[in-house]
Amino acid sequence: MDHLIVEHTLEQLRNALERDDLQGAAVIIEVLRPADQAEIFAELDEDQQVALLPQIAAEDSADILEELDDETVAELVEFLADEEVVRIVEEMEPDEAADLLGDVTPERAEVLLSSLEDPDEVRPLMIHPDESAGGLMTSEFLVLRRRMTARDAIDAFRQWNPDAETIYYLYVIDRYGQLCGVINLRQLILANLDSLILDIMETKLISVQAGTDQEEAAQLLVRYDLLALPVVNEQGILLGVITVDDVLDVLEEEATEDIQRYGGAQPLERAYLDTPPSIITRKRIGWLLLLFLTATLTGSVMRLYQNELAAIVSLAIFIPLLIGTGGNAGSQTTATIIRALGTRDIEPHDALRVWWHEVRVGLLLGLGMAIAAYIRAITWEPNVALALTVSASILGLVLWATGVGSILPLIAARLGIDPALVSGPLMSTLVDATGLFIYFNIAKVILAI
Amino acid sequence: MDHLIVEHTLEQLRNALERDDLQGAAVIIEVLRPADQAEIFAELDEDQQVALLPQIAAEDSADILEELDDETVAELVEFLADEEVVRIVEEMEPDEAADLLGDVTPERAEVLLSSLEDPDEVRPLMIHPDESAGGLMTSEFLVLRRRMTARDAIDAFRQWNPDAETIYYLYVIDRYGQLCGVINLRQLILANLDSLILDIMETKLISVQAGTDQEEAAQLLVRYDLLALPVVNEQGILLGVITVDDVLDVLEEEATEDIQRYGGAQPLERAYLDTPPSIITRKRIGWLLLLFLTATLTGSVMRLYQNELAAIVSLAIFIPLLIGTGGNAGSQTTATIIRALGTRDIEPHDALRVWWHEVRVGLLLGLGMAIAAYIRAITWEPNVALALTVSASILGLVLWATGVGSILPLIAARLGIDPALVSGPLMSTLVDATGLFIYFNIAKVILAI
Repeated sequence: MDHLIVEHTLEQLRNALERDDLQGAAVIIEVLRPADQAEIFAELDEDQQVALLPQIAAEDSADILEELDDETVAELVEFLADEEVVRIVEEMEPDEAADLLGDVTPERAEVLLSSLEDPDEVRPLMIHPDESAGGLMTSEFLVLRRRMTARDAIDAFRQWNPDAETIYYLYVIDRYGQLCGVINLRQLILANLDSLILDIMETKLISVQAGTDQEEAAQLLVRYDLLALPVVNEQGILLGVITVDDVLDVLEEEATEDIQRYGGAQPLERAYLDTPPSIITRKRIGWLLLLFLTATLTGSVMRLYQNELAAIVSLAIFIPLLIGTGGNAGSQTTATIIRALGTRDIEPHDALRVWWHEVRVGLLLGLGMAIAAYIRAITWEPNVALALTVSASILGLVLWATGVGSILPLIAARLGIDPALVSGPLMSTLVDATGLFIYFNIAKVILAI
Repeated sequence: MDHLIVEHTLEQLRNALERDDLQGAAVIIEVLRPADQAEIFAELDEDQQVALLPQIAAEDSADILEELDDETVAELVEFLADEEVVRIVEEMEPDEAADLLGDVTPERAEVLLSSLEDPDEVRPLMIHPDESAGGLMTSEFLVLRRRMTARDAIDAFRQWNPDAETIYYLYVIDRYGQLCGVINLRQLILANLDSLILDIMETKLISVQAGTDQEEAAQLLVRYDLLALPVVNEQGILLGVITVDDVLDVLEEEATEDIQRYGGAQPLERAYLDTPPSIITRKRIGWLLLLFLTATLTGSVMRLYQNELAAIVSLAIFIPLLIGTGGNAGSQTTATIIRALGTRDIEPHDALRVWWHEVRVGLLLGLGMAIAAYIRAITWEPNVALALTVSASILGLVLWATGVGSILPLIAARLGIDPALVSGPLMSTLVDATGLFIYFNIAKVILAI
């Protein structure tokens, strides 16, 4: 929605709320699309939200809660009466309902579940961790049998009458309940009505186990251009289905987390402006302190070479230049490698190839930067030995930075640590300390101090 | 595919190629899924690729070219005979075919186009820029009329007999050819066969203009959980359809570009290991030189305060600590803001709110870091005035860095510049120079030098 329309709708809504016209306010919300409803709703104060939600039609309330951050929903639900929560949860997709119930106390979840019309649709979904394929899947799916005809399948589909927008695949199970095929609505419409499902279904199936990481499941769906991915247990029994709209959300979330981690902060759990400064500070200060500690390493290196610094103060002038370039070269490498790992462009076992790739890049970059540094140094201080020192140091630093920047994320990935944790800032800070070491030692040799 | 299976398949393939058994090699490729075919194929040398491609079934060759990077395809096509290219292009999706033809010389594109069975399916797609909604859309779609019955629609769909996996929506046009509704296959199957399209279609449509940026189109599809998005011209005439699988690729590509830019390098056009070191170097050296130039600013600031430095050499020891912390605080902020802009969590007009948010974060972070810095400084050098200088400087620096880090990307966005260009390294380097300025001036006051 356009920014001006949002502002205008919000104003109307706030006016209605000030007049205590809750029904009028509900109508303003109900005519919007789910994503827009949630955007507008999120702008209200919490007490307004609590007052308004019971007035909004259950399907719309369900849509709104599905679109909001899990944390916002959990807070909101605390203020709502049980029967109100049940009214809304009844209308939610089973996977979203399970997420919501997983965020309230176990006792309340039990009470709410037992009030649902069909608790068995939601209950099995609650045992899977949020970040797994099982946590992402929905239990709303239709299974066909191999001996059904296309006509039977269409009848079964009509009887089921799903209201979810994104149902496209129908899965086929064998007599043991194991997933053995898939057919999509396009194939079903195109098929001769008397043909057997057996003959039209696709048997080369891609499926994931419930415990698979949600990011891995998402990458599979993207790789093979699927609109949904079936989730099975160890015995191959179909448990649920992951749909592409949920995958899009996962991918967006994961990319956000990668970028935030790479920027040297723990990922935020909710939208930026909805996160209070105190929480943002908490997410950032840990890394900042850790990086501060590693930066004191750099200070320690400088203290080691205090005599050299006192002898030639000009050495200090080039320090920001050197550690800046080293840090930047390292960041460039790390950003590329982390992302290539994320999109499965490279795998941890490619370490050697990647490192050799970066050595060559580092050599080229280092030579280029060495020339630039020599020119800059000689124009600042007409001292060839000093200029050579700076120039040689920058070559060494860039080589070192690209090497470390490429190998660290790969080691992290191999050890099962998220490579994005080897963030840009950590990289720079590490390269800073070791870079000064290189610099002062080259200076000692060339300048003979 | 599992890494070991890839290795094994590649070995089989290379053996077949060494025996000059091109047909055997083709079979090894043909049994795989498109994404796997492309992965294996990309590992071969170019002369092997050129020899093998004509032996592979046209549909499989088309799938492979669709999955490969545009640049790799362009190189490969140069070595293939016209009739070979035509054989493959015939089997490609129209949007992918248009992309391929856009990458050869205009003369050759004309020759190839005129040899196609149905050039009019591809030609109109070639006028749209690659990065626009028009460049992303396919011209393969079925239009329905409002007065058709569901039975007519199903017949039309069967007659059309599309082979694209991801066709889910059918669009409805009025007598002027303007898009006026949409119905999906689920609704079509569920509908009474005699009901009019008019009565079952959804008229609250979301569509984009052909000139819309592809990222904006992608965000719309994600926001409203759609599987496809219709593209229209200024008159509302339906031109094509963007499908969710293409959107997934765009989102992945854009996130990769964001991270690479944020890491301070121009985005690579193809997979990391397929990009030669010389190209990677070229993508990085521009920024590295620019950052080097801004870093010499920092050196200039230090030259300005050379006397102060000579008077108290210990001042130099804290420089890496200070500029490191400032840079890191700035990176954390920028990463968060860039991403929040990317996912439309915040908009450029939110600048004031964002800045105020960051001022409060900066104050909290700055106070925390000031305490840490005081402790570190006093244990290094038992000099209260110096420790106070360092501590006050770090508070000032963090405040300054979070402020600048939040406002710069927003200004860039408002000016229509990609905010990811305000990369982490640029941020750090800018904060370095100004940070030293703050440091030396506080030192002059507190230490009275």
